[in-house]
Amino acid sequence: MVEEICSSVEQIRNIHPLVHNITNYVVMNFTANVLLALGASPVMAHAEEEVEEMVGLANALVLNIGTLSQPWIDSMARAARAARNRSIPVVLDPVGAGATRFRTETARRLLGETPPAVLRGNGSEIMALAGSKGTTKGVDSVAGSQDARQAAMDLAKSYGMVVAVTGAEDFVTDGSRRALIANGHGLLSRVTGTGCAVSAVTGAFCGVQKDPFTAALGALVTFGIAGEIAAREAPGPGSFQIRLLDALDAVDSPAIRELARVSLS
Amino acid sequence: MVEEICSSVEQIRNIHPLVHNITNYVVMNFTANVLLALGASPVMAHAEEEVEEMVGLANALVLNIGTLSQPWIDSMARAARAARNRSIPVVLDPVGAGATRFRTETARRLLGETPPAVLRGNGSEIMALAGSKGTTKGVDSVAGSQDARQAAMDLAKSYGMVVAVTGAEDFVTDGSRRALIANGHGLLSRVTGTGCAVSAVTGAFCGVQKDPFTAALGALVTFGIAGEIAAREAPGPGSFQIRLLDALDAVDSPAIRELARVSLS
Amino acid sequence: MVEEICSSVEQIRNIHPLVHNITNYVVMNFTANVLLALGASPVMAHAEEEVEEMVGLANALVLNIGTLSQPWIDSMARAARAARNRSIPVVLDPVGAGATRFRTETARRLLGETPPAVLRGNGSEIMALAGSKGTTKGVDSVAGSQDARQAAMDLAKSYGMVVAVTGAEDFVTDGSRRALIANGHGLLSRVTGTGCAVSAVTGAFCGVQKDPFTAALGALVTFGIAGEIAAREAPGPGSFQIRLLDALDAVDSPAIRELARVSLS
Repeated sequence: MVEEICSSVEQIRNIHPLVHNITNYVVMNFTANVLLALGASPVMAHAEEEVEEMVGLANALVLNIGTLSQPWIDSMARAARAARNRSIPVVLDPVGAGATRFRTETARRLLGETPPAVLRGNGSEIMALAGSKGTTKGVDSVAGSQDARQAAMDLAKSYGMVVAVTGAEDFVTDGSRRALIANGHGLLSRVTGTGCAVSAVTGAFCGVQKDPFTAALGALVTFGIAGEIAAREAPGPGSFQIRLLDALDAVDSPAIRELARVSLS
Repeated sequence: MVEEICSSVEQIRNIHPLVHNITNYVVMNFTANVLLALGASPVMAHAEEEVEEMVGLANALVLNIGTLSQPWIDSMARAARAARNRSIPVVLDPVGAGATRFRTETARRLLGETPPAVLRGNGSEIMALAGSKGTTKGVDSVAGSQDARQAAMDLAKSYGMVVAVTGAEDFVTDGSRRALIANGHGLLSRVTGTGCAVSAVTGAFCGVQKDPFTAALGALVTFGIAGEIAAREAPGPGSFQIRLLDALDAVDSPAIRELARVSLS
Repeated sequence: MVEEICSSVEQIRNIHPLVHNITNYVVMNFTANVLLALGASPVMAHAEEEVEEMVGLANALVLNIGTLSQPWIDSMARAARAARNRSIPVVLDPVGAGATRFRTETARRLLGETPPAVLRGNGSEIMALAGSKGTTKGVDSVAGSQDARQAAMDLAKSYGMVVAVTGAEDFVTDGSRRALIANGHGLLSRVTGTGCAVSAVTGAFCGVQKDPFTAALGALVTFGIAGEIAAREAPGPGSFQIRLLDALDAVDSPAIRELARVSLS
């Protein structure tokens, strides 16, 4: 598995997969810089007039509902249909699902209409979408991981997709395969948009790796390792954010082989 | 007063108050990172469909008119009413009031419909809202501070709110109490959104401190001190922005006791 | 020519030209920080209700179609007309022209209705607007520079404007004068929005320099030199972005005289 992750990172740097993001205003800049630092090619486009044409150029589509409004939902649905028709992998980030009905219902609508290759959320969001009684405080998760893992398994089976739950320890499942990832660092929760960024990175991995389970795993491991490298000398969350971009640029096969902490089951 | 500021900072780090921001596109990322660095929990949500539900989860609401359009104004008004009904404190940042009629009128409409706990602006903006003949050059203040202070006193009395005027020296009043704050650094004006950030930080303080005068004062002092710490080794405005986030994470009671420069009258 | 660039930089720092940007969500924050670091004064405003009034306060208007939608196009067209009526220079950045019909047509509509003082794009974008068969991969250029230079000449003559094509080597023409600029650094392509930023910087130069050819040249040289300075000690793209802001603040006449690499023809 670790060799497949190394191979995906190399491919991202060779192919520069185009990742089409329809994402929230807060993280657009950081998301684009994360993708560029890793070696991918980001594009943001949300107008109904162009999303189908843009997604047709892309290697992956990332949908993120972090700052939602009706025209954006319509564009996301339209882009997701175009992606499905062209077999372009979709990653869905249900930011804040469970916090408001509008977010929960929008995420469910997108899941139901065009199940993505990968759903990536925190514990609260995944539990809210599975119908569990999780509590979402704003956009931050307060759900325990064991319940969230069961919710992820249920969702993965229902929709035939991979579900990635990020937190202190990350969990990925396609309904049968399961993986736990112990990479990452506490400072990642002190910078806005790191969850959104790992969703975008999952898009980049999906653009070079056909199996979405392997792609999601690779994204979580690689991003988590970059976080560990960035935290080594960061005096605070501002410096950490910048070093994270440097680390995404620098992370390579030796670092992945040394630092990856994955257990499959 | 200084001990109350120290206590508020500690409470922000213990409680992580949820600050709901309906703010401008330019500063969303930086605002979220400023709140996270300080220890608060930011959420951005602007859709009419969800703002009332989201503000109901929040400890404070921050409205910022920096990149205005009609749907956003409607959502701000709706969120402000919901906040009032639930006694959730509101901070209003009238970015660019005085520069265009649209901004001046929007800020006045929001003030008139639902007076906030705290209005935070620069001298030009505060004077424009008080009907003085200030001149706003884009979103930067060109108004002298003495006139702005009188305008702040007038507005505070008229609307029964706290007014905070930031500049080389900051001024806070609730119409009777007045404070001058001499913290801060010139580099703060070389980074976009530092005024917007201090408004958001005022929201975080309002989320843990009932008295909005004390909350606004605490926000200005703490943010100003973080600016001073950040400036110590910053070779330019880029580095300063990053160090400011590190300093908001690091600032503590000893630093506040040593560096606070407040005079009450 | 180099002395005129030095003089423009000094004037930007003395006059702080107000640059009104109607730009994309991804780069708003970085664009504002770039302008502030250089010494200019940025404002972002996109509502139809205020763009005419705001542009009337500005020394230059920068239009950027990076995250397009219909209301924004209408505001751009309206702002451009107001700018023309008041002889305020306009810079147009046709982000992603050639990638989707929506972008190509919008850029052409804006060019046709109110030709800007300067059109600034990458090779693919310029070729798409000239009707050449360039290929745009998302928002990144894949066009060779020789063909792009011919397209730039054609467009410059057709519309009576300056065209600046950025890439490994930059090219500027007004249809008769031509310049090649060899400043810059590869890391500039690893940070999102550096192309958009140089368009905004071109706006700042147009705000203090009447001749748009000289202004565009000055912007490209100054920004490129800042990139070279920033790259000297940057361990990766994150650090580079921050050092670029520091370098824009620090770049001065001696640095410009030493590092400018311009050839006129």
